[in-house]
Amino acid sequence: MTERIVLAYSGGLDTSVAIGWIAEETGAEVVAVAVDVGQGGEDLDTIRKRALDCGAVEAVVTDAREEFADQYCLPALQANALYMDRYPLVSALSRPVIVKHLVEAAKYHGATTVSHGCTGKGNDQVRFEVGIGALAPDLKVIAPVRDFAWTREKAIAWAHDRNLPIDQTKSSPYSVDQNVWGRAVETGFLEDIWNAPIEDVYSYTDNPAEPRDPDEVVVTFDRGVPVAIDGETVTVLQAVQQLNRRAGAHGIGRLDMVEDRLVGIKSREVYEAPGAIALITAHQELESVTVERDLARFKRQVEQRWSELVYDGLWFSPLKDALDTFVAKTQEHVSGEIRMTLHAGRAVPTGRRSEASLYDFNLATYDEGDTFDQSLAKGFVQLWGLPSKIAAKRDQHRHA
Amino acid sequence: MTERIVLAYSGGLDTSVAIGWIAEETGAEVVAVAVDVGQGGEDLDTIRKRALDCGAVEAVVTDAREEFADQYCLPALQANALYMDRYPLVSALSRPVIVKHLVEAAKYHGATTVSHGCTGKGNDQVRFEVGIGALAPDLKVIAPVRDFAWTREKAIAWAHDRNLPIDQTKSSPYSVDQNVWGRAVETGFLEDIWNAPIEDVYSYTDNPAEPRDPDEVVVTFDRGVPVAIDGETVTVLQAVQQLNRRAGAHGIGRLDMVEDRLVGIKSREVYEAPGAIALITAHQELESVTVERDLARFKRQVEQRWSELVYDGLWFSPLKDALDTFVAKTQEHVSGEIRMTLHAGRAVPTGRRSEASLYDFNLATYDEGDTFDQSLAKGFVQLWGLPSKIAAKRDQHRHA
Amino acid sequence: MTERIVLAYSGGLDTSVAIGWIAEETGAEVVAVAVDVGQGGEDLDTIRKRALDCGAVEAVVTDAREEFADQYCLPALQANALYMDRYPLVSALSRPVIVKHLVEAAKYHGATTVSHGCTGKGNDQVRFEVGIGALAPDLKVIAPVRDFAWTREKAIAWAHDRNLPIDQTKSSPYSVDQNVWGRAVETGFLEDIWNAPIEDVYSYTDNPAEPRDPDEVVVTFDRGVPVAIDGETVTVLQAVQQLNRRAGAHGIGRLDMVEDRLVGIKSREVYEAPGAIALITAHQELESVTVERDLARFKRQVEQRWSELVYDGLWFSPLKDALDTFVAKTQEHVSGEIRMTLHAGRAVPTGRRSEASLYDFNLATYDEGDTFDQSLAKGFVQLWGLPSKIAAKRDQHRHA
Amino acid sequence: MTERIVLAYSGGLDTSVAIGWIAEETGAEVVAVAVDVGQGGEDLDTIRKRALDCGAVEAVVTDAREEFADQYCLPALQANALYMDRYPLVSALSRPVIVKHLVEAAKYHGATTVSHGCTGKGNDQVRFEVGIGALAPDLKVIAPVRDFAWTREKAIAWAHDRNLPIDQTKSSPYSVDQNVWGRAVETGFLEDIWNAPIEDVYSYTDNPAEPRDPDEVVVTFDRGVPVAIDGETVTVLQAVQQLNRRAGAHGIGRLDMVEDRLVGIKSREVYEAPGAIALITAHQELESVTVERDLARFKRQVEQRWSELVYDGLWFSPLKDALDTFVAKTQEHVSGEIRMTLHAGRAVPTGRRSEASLYDFNLATYDEGDTFDQSLAKGFVQLWGLPSKIAAKRDQHRHA
Repeated sequence: MTERIVLAYSGGLDTSVAIGWIAEETGAEVVAVAVDVGQGGEDLDTIRKRALDCGAVEAVVTDAREEFADQYCLPALQANALYMDRYPLVSALSRPVIVKHLVEAAKYHGATTVSHGCTGKGNDQVRFEVGIGALAPDLKVIAPVRDFAWTREKAIAWAHDRNLPIDQTKSSPYSVDQNVWGRAVETGFLEDIWNAPIEDVYSYTDNPAEPRDPDEVVVTFDRGVPVAIDGETVTVLQAVQQLNRRAGAHGIGRLDMVEDRLVGIKSREVYEAPGAIALITAHQELESVTVERDLARFKRQVEQRWSELVYDGLWFSPLKDALDTFVAKTQEHVSGEIRMTLHAGRAVPTGRRSEASLYDFNLATYDEGDTFDQSLAKGFVQLWGLPSKIAAKRDQHRHA
Repeated sequence: MTERIVLAYSGGLDTSVAIGWIAEETGAEVVAVAVDVGQGGEDLDTIRKRALDCGAVEAVVTDAREEFADQYCLPALQANALYMDRYPLVSALSRPVIVKHLVEAAKYHGATTVSHGCTGKGNDQVRFEVGIGALAPDLKVIAPVRDFAWTREKAIAWAHDRNLPIDQTKSSPYSVDQNVWGRAVETGFLEDIWNAPIEDVYSYTDNPAEPRDPDEVVVTFDRGVPVAIDGETVTVLQAVQQLNRRAGAHGIGRLDMVEDRLVGIKSREVYEAPGAIALITAHQELESVTVERDLARFKRQVEQRWSELVYDGLWFSPLKDALDTFVAKTQEHVSGEIRMTLHAGRAVPTGRRSEASLYDFNLATYDEGDTFDQSLAKGFVQLWGLPSKIAAKRDQHRHA
Repeated sequence: MTERIVLAYSGGLDTSVAIGWIAEETGAEVVAVAVDVGQGGEDLDTIRKRALDCGAVEAVVTDAREEFADQYCLPALQANALYMDRYPLVSALSRPVIVKHLVEAAKYHGATTVSHGCTGKGNDQVRFEVGIGALAPDLKVIAPVRDFAWTREKAIAWAHDRNLPIDQTKSSPYSVDQNVWGRAVETGFLEDIWNAPIEDVYSYTDNPAEPRDPDEVVVTFDRGVPVAIDGETVTVLQAVQQLNRRAGAHGIGRLDMVEDRLVGIKSREVYEAPGAIALITAHQELESVTVERDLARFKRQVEQRWSELVYDGLWFSPLKDALDTFVAKTQEHVSGEIRMTLHAGRAVPTGRRSEASLYDFNLATYDEGDTFDQSLAKGFVQLWGLPSKIAAKRDQHRHA
Repeated sequence: MTERIVLAYSGGLDTSVAIGWIAEETGAEVVAVAVDVGQGGEDLDTIRKRALDCGAVEAVVTDAREEFADQYCLPALQANALYMDRYPLVSALSRPVIVKHLVEAAKYHGATTVSHGCTGKGNDQVRFEVGIGALAPDLKVIAPVRDFAWTREKAIAWAHDRNLPIDQTKSSPYSVDQNVWGRAVETGFLEDIWNAPIEDVYSYTDNPAEPRDPDEVVVTFDRGVPVAIDGETVTVLQAVQQLNRRAGAHGIGRLDMVEDRLVGIKSREVYEAPGAIALITAHQELESVTVERDLARFKRQVEQRWSELVYDGLWFSPLKDALDTFVAKTQEHVSGEIRMTLHAGRAVPTGRRSEASLYDFNLATYDEGDTFDQSLAKGFVQLWGLPSKIAAKRDQHRHA
């Protein structure tokens, strides 16, 4: 039986060409797999047809948007996942769900190898290959761009020689990766980190600097899951999509940063993630009302580690799994409503309401109804400061 | 010799009345100490005179603004100190410098006790008393509001009975604490956390929602210290003050949050800190360019702990001192320029330039000049993912 | 109806006297509650009778040893809980289970208050009261020793005056707290931290310095639970008890340390915990074979925080609960056998065997059968060290 | 000019053969560099001569024992560095000092490349190459065993063919790496992790199971540095050497473990480090008396990270440097004496004495002289437990 290779297929020039190139190079049959995580563009049938036209022996296309939102974006939201305190892990989240479908397709179609189009200096090669290794340790991987120095120029020439049905006229200066949770853009002039991004770079967000009227939104969470917007029930996918539109209209979620890549270099990245940033903002606000102090403090460390792991390609890993159980437990009481103003690049919480609130008006108020027993404080303060005080006495004694 | 008590004196009604009240209650002489940390209001001479008029045996007034900026705000900036990832520790930073002057005055004037006007349900009592204990373990503390249930109403009656020279007509619904680094406001209607703050609450910042033209600013750092703004040399104090004005004019640094107090309750707090937020934003951006990845990741944990310690009143403590040495070491190469746009509530970095940059264009670029050896990646990816892969094999074997 | 107070009752002089004293002082009826956590001594019926003889309106005695072992010692074992890397939390673990029974008795018998005999300078008052507050926030607490300066001398006089049926002749210089998990001893001459403990201090362990033949034991774990010893099925309680005997016979688990108490002071403590130390040693060894590297590294941090929380009286707290879910998840594959030599104060693992092992002979061996592909290493090493290398280049350039 | 390669030279068969092999393969001149870190064996002159006889163009031999003890072992001691809470980093510490001498020799002798004899599945290749990259980013590295599959068998044949002056008769089943700080042993039968080590494996330590009389030792530290043993002034090197002998005579510091290697596999390792373990035990004990609680708790996390970094080859890295400043600060008051009993495999502290002690007898004692104000405790306990109590109320309300 002929060997089979599953190819992560986007429908674009490079992976369309790769179908034939891989087949030729390896003698294997190529199964093209396209996964819709909300990247937009052509419909799945068109993509499927092109794969077959380009020589794929099978072409599998899947709408994974609900799955992506529920099983990948939602844990990230609950972990308030922001790599380097800023980046909501847009591409890092979509890789694992794509990997899952690649591995399933490999099993179903009897493939022994998976192929992806990542370069050798980015994070995505790691996310693909470590993910594949964790789901199917026996699958092999080939990465033509990295392992065979396959370039766009070679791809165009190859397509031209073989008369492939691919339109090469649309040429964009931008290298883009987008999904439901956000959008990443790279381009040559941004490689000078003194250059500011230009408006043309953005697509999910309007210019935050343009005057317009604010929008007000109320997000309802039930145990850490966004379940309603302005009182209307939504799925997680709908929540992200609706806030992509509404927060995007106010330029929320733009991000321009210098990022620490796993492969050891710093790179300039520009992102937009209006829905993700609006939801994380609301979620953090609700947690500040419903999560106990020590738990909240430790959760911040877990959030950082979770974000680093996922950024670093370790979505499918024992530590990530164990941190997930911690995060899930913290969401038990994260229920209630957050009111936010969306305007001029910012989602600003202005009200919180929760049955599970730990904010106790009577303990907090300085007015009538105050139930806080201030007489307890003196003893607390004394013992709280005792270790520092004893150390201070020691220091004085030694320096005397 | 008559005992002496040093009183933390603000010039306002409560502490003015306290001078006489403490003297009467304890039989001690009261030394009033006022420290200018940029709270504005009356000049120091007026305050000094009032203290003496109200019966203080000595009145010490100090302009500590440079000291506060250099020795308290600057370490906070270098630690990117944001309690709960948000609050730049406005009041928490001023307490230690005030404590230092109280303790010095106590030594100089031979006092055995220090008195402050904090309540028993806030953080400031802890910051005062733990600080005093750490600088002068033998000093006693009295806190009339907390320990003797001394209230504003009692103070007014007391002042009236004794005909003290205090104007009680100005009554504000707001309880305010302000200094160079920012401003904190509390008031009754904000104790309902569903209520949004109203414009009247703010003083350091203009309404970010009003249309106006953006401002652009370039901040220069030398080893973590802001040394120039738009090319003009500044002291730390001047940097904060200038950015308070310029960032404040764009509504930057407003903060409305539910906060975990050390005494165990959650409270609603509203802050403004335009200069602090603009400087921290610029500083973080420069660190992302000049600080190595592992160091940056660990520094985030240190920053969180540093912020918690300072919030929790442990400025003068062995752990805080040791974390300071770590942070100081990280600033060695944090030199360079950050260009930011100030507009509509946001300080947005748009350019970075540094002699100490770790961003290497040739390693990062996808264009000509690329020096990254992609052939190294395959081995890296394989070994990076090996532990997960071995674990995956084990899991499959066990679940088979 | 007369108010009722539940008293944590040990059967000893102090708490026997407290029954009558509390009743007299407060006018309430006293319900005595004794919980057997393996402290040994008199049988429960005797204790029950004495409580009634001393005036208790009800006396509840419970054998909680299985519950203590399964629900308190086992989580500590799975967390390898060693406060300050040494102390296996002997007393800190028993307090929560006692609290649970006190609260249950209070509910059942309609009490509004719980009373305990702890002093005001130890950790146990915190563990009792924070635990009670977390299980029954409305119960009040009284602590006669702390709140009314009730002393042993007063208790003896009080018992004598009222002719209580208590034997006061046995006087020990030691203050002891013991349970299944271990034993704590305090005594005057150990308060000089230059003094070594004497043999008389110990009861669970024989002198490790005496020559004797080693013992060899094989402990089998199933998902983190010790389920067999030398192939014989055991409950957790039996595992601890058997190893208390066998490891105790070799002087294992003695501990002499200066400890950081929650109330802010350092204190000298002597412990013995032969079973606990032997089990933790075996469990750690099995984890080193079955838990993946990143998970193991993070778990160490969780273990430290878990131990601090439990030591600090926060057994019943949101963070402790969430850390428990993390630890539970890590135990999934902690199954297998550890062979140990017990001798001369040490439990030394000498063999490990597990179906869930992550140790892969073929990857580890340097002999025939080696499957590790060394060609992958070069790329790994290069990229692993790249951030340091780039930083080094920067430093050289700046210092040049 | 002919290119030059600096070779890390041990004097043994493999590296002796490598001199000629590398010269032949590359056409370069080979400079042999041997660094004495206390590995014992032949004297440096003999080694130097052999290198020249084997064809080295230059041979550099250095006694780096003092440097190793002062600049590498001492920081490890102050960090209580135990990888996986057990392994005192024996080999991991010697690699950086060797790297430093290799790089110096490369500069002095004008070499462009460094060569080492490590395999591709261990940690040492990483420690060598990352260290070289951090000290001299422009130096190249070749690793014949890893990169050219150079084996012992080939080396023997090669030596035979060329009649090299190397004795091949001594063949040991053990692969050993030893230095002042300890000794590592690997061998085939230990690759079965159910096998116990045999006595023959050990060299620094006698059998702890043999009956003998205990030894008692007092170690004096000054700011974290061991400065005297039993009152006699020592250098760090002398302290380690003397305790290697005295603790080794009681079988202290043997270690048999399954270890997480950086390259992603678990391996079985046997170590002996009598001096290191005795010194770390004493140092930890003194810290428990002289380091404040919060600082001690955070230092534990720093110690873990420090150990992981050094184990993982990142001795010369920005994070390691910054952690060093933290650790150095913590040693300020780590001065005093620790008395220990050395016996039967254990170093057991029995007494502590320090001018810088934070143990306050008057606060700790339950006897006369007690100065602890127990009345402060009630308030402390109440506020300490308040967050859990509020959370408990919330939970009851929600589950009702």
